[in-house]
Amino acid sequence: MSSQSSTQSFGPTPEHFFRSINAYQLTQALKGALDLDVFTAITEGKTTAKALAESRQASERGMRILCDYLAVMGFLTKAGGNYILTPDSAMFLDRRLPTYVGGSVDFLLSPTFEQAFSDVAAAVRKGGTAISNEGTMSHDNPVWVKFARAMQPLSYGMAQMLTGLVKLDPGKKTKALDIAASHGLYGLSFALQYPKLEVVAVDWANVLEVGRENAEKFGVADRWRALPGSAFDVDFGADTGKGYDLVLVPNFFHHFDPPTNEMLMRKIHAALNEDGRAITVDFVPDEDRAERPQAVAFALTMLATTAGGDAYTFAEYDKMFANAGFSRSELIQPPIGIQQVIVSYK
Amino acid sequence: MSSQSSTQSFGPTPEHFFRSINAYQLTQALKGALDLDVFTAITEGKTTAKALAESRQASERGMRILCDYLAVMGFLTKAGGNYILTPDSAMFLDRRLPTYVGGSVDFLLSPTFEQAFSDVAAAVRKGGTAISNEGTMSHDNPVWVKFARAMQPLSYGMAQMLTGLVKLDPGKKTKALDIAASHGLYGLSFALQYPKLEVVAVDWANVLEVGRENAEKFGVADRWRALPGSAFDVDFGADTGKGYDLVLVPNFFHHFDPPTNEMLMRKIHAALNEDGRAITVDFVPDEDRAERPQAVAFALTMLATTAGGDAYTFAEYDKMFANAGFSRSELIQPPIGIQQVIVSYK
Repeated sequence: MSSQSSTQSFGPTPEHFFRSINAYQLTQALKGALDLDVFTAITEGKTTAKALAESRQASERGMRILCDYLAVMGFLTKAGGNYILTPDSAMFLDRRLPTYVGGSVDFLLSPTFEQAFSDVAAAVRKGGTAISNEGTMSHDNPVWVKFARAMQPLSYGMAQMLTGLVKLDPGKKTKALDIAASHGLYGLSFALQYPKLEVVAVDWANVLEVGRENAEKFGVADRWRALPGSAFDVDFGADTGKGYDLVLVPNFFHHFDPPTNEMLMRKIHAALNEDGRAITVDFVPDEDRAERPQAVAFALTMLATTAGGDAYTFAEYDKMFANAGFSRSELIQPPIGIQQVIVSYK
Repeated sequence: MSSQSSTQSFGPTPEHFFRSINAYQLTQALKGALDLDVFTAITEGKTTAKALAESRQASERGMRILCDYLAVMGFLTKAGGNYILTPDSAMFLDRRLPTYVGGSVDFLLSPTFEQAFSDVAAAVRKGGTAISNEGTMSHDNPVWVKFARAMQPLSYGMAQMLTGLVKLDPGKKTKALDIAASHGLYGLSFALQYPKLEVVAVDWANVLEVGRENAEKFGVADRWRALPGSAFDVDFGADTGKGYDLVLVPNFFHHFDPPTNEMLMRKIHAALNEDGRAITVDFVPDEDRAERPQAVAFALTMLATTAGGDAYTFAEYDKMFANAGFSRSELIQPPIGIQQVIVSYK
């Protein structure tokens, strides 16, 4: 909302407060624009309020007000009476493109999240989600099927990037475990890169259906196996000498408290080969929790939606992995994206 | 949310979209912080998560996560483990100060607004509020009592500023009509400035109770008279030669369509003395509706909450006032605040 900043500044003003307390309107306006598929219509040449209104069976007045709002909020540019997509909107909000991220609203604005954020004070008092004992971590919670479908376009780029950061020996038969695999894209990106890699994906059975679809799309279904259940409960099936070379843990540890994570890390440690690595992809704030703002802010989502989750710093991860038996961990800041990567060596 | 902007930029990214679709979390976090009165506690010396948690019967973990979030969002600064208020927060979010604006959430986050913004696409299709035929403009809607109480600290500065921009002859007996007076602060600020000024305030009877309280606080109750009812219906009581010198119309025209406004402007024109002026205080975007972002964005609130309201440009106001018989209008951009002033001469 930087485009909303005032041009005057004469000492303290309440403007930042009012913009922020009304920030929900930005959420809702953007959701409305996606509901009406305004961005796609603009790329199809409907660039005036009148043309947009006609193409979307809407009022011209309503369309003009919505598009003007989207323009001052940085999603469109306005030239005369014509609206044009910004480069970001053209890439990510055109429904016809595989990079479309608008589907993420099914997850990000699901009733579970709405409820979890409806009383932040209650979560702060309690020190964890106020919606139930487990929040979004309850067994087979359908919100994770929504996540798997909705967040694919976003995860795709991060998963691709990860295969550039973490290398395997392409000549060797290798094995990766993809924990809380969701859409499966992390494991599948490695499978695409390494034809001798076998991937085992753990998640709820309902969620793994999305992963299986992707394995077929990627043409690697013969080297991808679903292991349904909780990562805490299922047998990872790593016999001595036939353990895993990589264990991928994207966006999972943030849901739990440190003792719970250490328990899982020990289980991962046991499942790794001697030269194996655990790869954490997550929101990792700096040690002061003041830099990497998206990572710092993400902790609030964990407070509101989980019993004991957090955005852990590298020092906290390092300690948890060490307690679980890992020899050392290193933090990598990828060149793109808002998340960090931790490589932990058995 | 400028503090959330990414440090990398490698061509298009979906980050602005994700920050914006999650913007409702900023609303809710800020509301949570006000519910817990965190800002006041910090000024009282509770500057660590631990001290804040103790003073507010909350968890330390929850308080740390909330305050870190408020820091990256620009409401606090963090130095070591201590939180400090920004100058804006110190002035406007400390509940002990008369400048506290946190009470505005009772109005800004009232269920009416939540409902109105729950389906922006529906309002765009219809071209006006989808919640009822009249939206917030229904007779005696209690949301305006909330407005009157909640928005006083914000209006106070603007009203004070207005008495510096619009002058009356202090030696003459004068008369002002304050339309949709609400808390009454616009008319009352003039009454304070001009001891010979008599003020008549029009609004719903339930709302005018707030104005009456303020008239007593200001010590001008003997020169302040409530005229309860709709501005469209009540007799302004302006006999020939005893008309009004000023008619104040703060934050009112934006609720209605131009024909409705012209009808009221004609009634105002008739109630003014020959040298009288109508003073509009409102959100007035530039003619392209691309500058003055708060004014442009405000139109969405009118789309979502009223049948035909808008943020009108100066050219649109000028035309409406001219059609209603006014000789000329001028636009003033006050040195502070996010609203504009239009002076229209009979």
